[in-house]
Amino acid sequence: MIRVLVFNEFCHERAEERIREVYPNGIHGAIADFLGKEEDFSVKTVTLDEVESITPALLAETDVLIWWAHMRHGNVPDEVAYMIRDAVLSGMGAIFLHSGHHSKPFRYLLGTSCDLTWRESDDEEILWVIEPSHPITRGIDRAIILPAEETYGEPFVIPTPDKLLFIGHFAGGEVFRSGCLYERGNGKIFYFQPGHESYPTYYNEQVQTVVKNAVRYLAPAYRCPSACPQVRHIKDEQYVMHAQSEF
Amino acid sequence: MIRVLVFNEFCHERAEERIREVYPNGIHGAIADFLGKEEDFSVKTVTLDEVESITPALLAETDVLIWWAHMRHGNVPDEVAYMIRDAVLSGMGAIFLHSGHHSKPFRYLLGTSCDLTWRESDDEEILWVIEPSHPITRGIDRAIILPAEETYGEPFVIPTPDKLLFIGHFAGGEVFRSGCLYERGNGKIFYFQPGHESYPTYYNEQVQTVVKNAVRYLAPAYRCPSACPQVRHIKDEQYVMHAQSEF
Amino acid sequence: MIRVLVFNEFCHERAEERIREVYPNGIHGAIADFLGKEEDFSVKTVTLDEVESITPALLAETDVLIWWAHMRHGNVPDEVAYMIRDAVLSGMGAIFLHSGHHSKPFRYLLGTSCDLTWRESDDEEILWVIEPSHPITRGIDRAIILPAEETYGEPFVIPTPDKLLFIGHFAGGEVFRSGCLYERGNGKIFYFQPGHESYPTYYNEQVQTVVKNAVRYLAPAYRCPSACPQVRHIKDEQYVMHAQSEF
Amino acid sequence: MIRVLVFNEFCHERAEERIREVYPNGIHGAIADFLGKEEDFSVKTVTLDEVESITPALLAETDVLIWWAHMRHGNVPDEVAYMIRDAVLSGMGAIFLHSGHHSKPFRYLLGTSCDLTWRESDDEEILWVIEPSHPITRGIDRAIILPAEETYGEPFVIPTPDKLLFIGHFAGGEVFRSGCLYERGNGKIFYFQPGHESYPTYYNEQVQTVVKNAVRYLAPAYRCPSACPQVRHIKDEQYVMHAQSEF
Repeated sequence: MIRVLVFNEFCHERAEERIREVYPNGIHGAIADFLGKEEDFSVKTVTLDEVESITPALLAETDVLIWWAHMRHGNVPDEVAYMIRDAVLSGMGAIFLHSGHHSKPFRYLLGTSCDLTWRESDDEEILWVIEPSHPITRGIDRAIILPAEETYGEPFVIPTPDKLLFIGHFAGGEVFRSGCLYERGNGKIFYFQPGHESYPTYYNEQVQTVVKNAVRYLAPAYRCPSACPQVRHIKDEQYVMHAQSEF
Repeated sequence: MIRVLVFNEFCHERAEERIREVYPNGIHGAIADFLGKEEDFSVKTVTLDEVESITPALLAETDVLIWWAHMRHGNVPDEVAYMIRDAVLSGMGAIFLHSGHHSKPFRYLLGTSCDLTWRESDDEEILWVIEPSHPITRGIDRAIILPAEETYGEPFVIPTPDKLLFIGHFAGGEVFRSGCLYERGNGKIFYFQPGHESYPTYYNEQVQTVVKNAVRYLAPAYRCPSACPQVRHIKDEQYVMHAQSEF
Repeated sequence: MIRVLVFNEFCHERAEERIREVYPNGIHGAIADFLGKEEDFSVKTVTLDEVESITPALLAETDVLIWWAHMRHGNVPDEVAYMIRDAVLSGMGAIFLHSGHHSKPFRYLLGTSCDLTWRESDDEEILWVIEPSHPITRGIDRAIILPAEETYGEPFVIPTPDKLLFIGHFAGGEVFRSGCLYERGNGKIFYFQPGHESYPTYYNEQVQTVVKNAVRYLAPAYRCPSACPQVRHIKDEQYVMHAQSEF
Repeated sequence: MIRVLVFNEFCHERAEERIREVYPNGIHGAIADFLGKEEDFSVKTVTLDEVESITPALLAETDVLIWWAHMRHGNVPDEVAYMIRDAVLSGMGAIFLHSGHHSKPFRYLLGTSCDLTWRESDDEEILWVIEPSHPITRGIDRAIILPAEETYGEPFVIPTPDKLLFIGHFAGGEVFRSGCLYERGNGKIFYFQPGHESYPTYYNEQVQTVVKNAVRYLAPAYRCPSACPQVRHIKDEQYVMHAQSEF
């Protein structure tokens, strides 16, 4: 059973009627809904109001964290962001969606500004598969067509992805590295661009397929905290060859 | 002085009037023309008819090889392709343009099929800069707009580029990794997608800027052939610590 | 069931008594032996004498190919090497062991000379795990100690690995990138340095663990040949969005 | 003229007689000394006592920052660390030496813990060149031999380097990724492992060559701050195609 924790800021949906109409139960509700139908997933949600409930204990019981946020990145305490960073380095998977590119945990994990260019013009987006054999693109044909999305454009100030899985084509002219996979410490990170709050993107079955694939791909086989130990000579009798999960 | 050798198949221009009108002196002529105006470049050209003149001696005197070909990849002898591969591994730079993605030297250097999808529809292309601080994109603003180009699409079956410098946006819906940089052995390889024979792409000043930047970036500081030597213990009196340029 | 094909040149073992004593059934025999004990593997072997039996049909029924060779790389026909390259690009996994670094299929897949420096001094090797969370290093503690191995040294003329999993430390002073993972097309390639013919390396349980891990990691989820198709506009009624496995 | 700023904690040298004997003018003094002999460098130094003097204005006038620190990483204010991170993303080069692997600016730029294993045993280190054609290894033969250094070992919890330039071999058995190059935003980062405070490493001419090479390689061609601008359609009359240095 893969334990998924879905974080959503849950601000737009409460502040604006037009967003609430798209996601009456919040974006986290919509995501938890389609994830919850998978027999191998157990799903919890948490919103910004409950951000204090994100603790090392909760993260230790989380295999994959999904993060959607936009307006209130600054309201996530640094200590929570560092806690998430450390959990990822220990092995937890983390999926950052759409405007989560500017969230603290994502920026702290990647180290760059994660800036991009953007425009809201109801542009159609065609999301092309770059790596057809990758487990995260499985079940997707050559592309996903989204009738309207917020336009994100390059340059996207990120480290070169370990693997670039999707590039988005926006009708207004832009392109964007829309699916970026990273390995950091013992954990994996996936950034996936679709999902502006004003569009019903998370009801799209192909988008759901990608998120479900990513959850399965990012779920860790084991967890191991980082350390900086002083060691003996490898042939010293007192040298302890710790198992990976303990050292 | 950077010594540039421009290879062009020179088939389309002789076979078709409409292509000859675009490139009356051949694509190699057009490229040599704008490169020749640079004071730090000395430029030679070679065509498929003269392919036998590509020798190790010529390549040893070449800093950067530029390769345009399309119809007759198979007419380049394997031994010439291997000669070019080995020259790149020794340090020579190589720029492969447009349909050169399927040329033997490019495929042999990268090891993959270098297949892609394509369409000829006079699509407008917007070539976005992904890495604004890279020497090869210097002088280019956020994008180059080409009124019409052959459409190339993903998946492009290449190794993940060491650095992705441009992504192309085609009006018909496709995206393409249009500027890909590789380091192999002591040499550098740049693939640049624009330049279908039926469009006046190589007269575009921004395209010319990219090619000139690439020539300067790929020019090697030194050359050194690859070897697989048997060595002594590093502290053996008879151990010879060869200078890089000799070992 | 993962279908493994083990190729071994099988020259040293027949030419030299001291090698035959180490591997009385050939290196392929020793490898097939420990792989054959796994319930999820079915194992076949093939030697250089039978190289003509390597056909597209055989490779189509192979999930992971293991390749050991040293003295007679040139006796493998180019057409067989290309066949293997294309099978890997379609999705087949390939593990190249030790002196397989200079084999045609490995060099053709990577594009570089794959040269290195070497010495036969019975050096002890300590093989350090660089990525403790990777599936291929699972079950290995911080390092594998091999009492004696052929010394391989840098520079190793390979493309930067997609993931560097092991670095070898030789008592005589050398280091070597001993475990290198690549993704090429739809397939994965793993190079693993240990296994000189004169040492009983393939009887080492930890080395066996790495090879077994690699077989499982490289086994493909599906196969799909490479192609360079002309396509229609994505919105053209006659556009066919081929499934990945067919296009 | 390349403007270099050398930061040194300057704690060990004042606290311990045996360290002061090695570096009577501080590690920063020793580094500034050999850098200052280069005609194209202008060198300033700053120590932890003066950390408040590190301002955006100072960094804007710095091409390459060199950072040595060990005991008091926590005394560098977060705001200074972020300032350095942002300067690097804008284009400033940064060289982190030895125990600087655990400094805030390095960790914040890379996003990982940068943990490693270590031992102080006066081990001899052989620093092997992995990429002989890279500008940073120019002038170095196959390896640098250091009679004694602090032993650093894997796993080193860093993102896969964009380019691995050196691997260290320690007499006690360890290996370490000792020269790691990263590109982040518009800037470059080089981590170089040698230089424990108790050994005269920075008087070694080959180590000096590497540091000087790195300064020249990391010096930026231009600087450009990161931004996340809202943009118009690229064909909108009011669209402004900003020059790279301004957008």
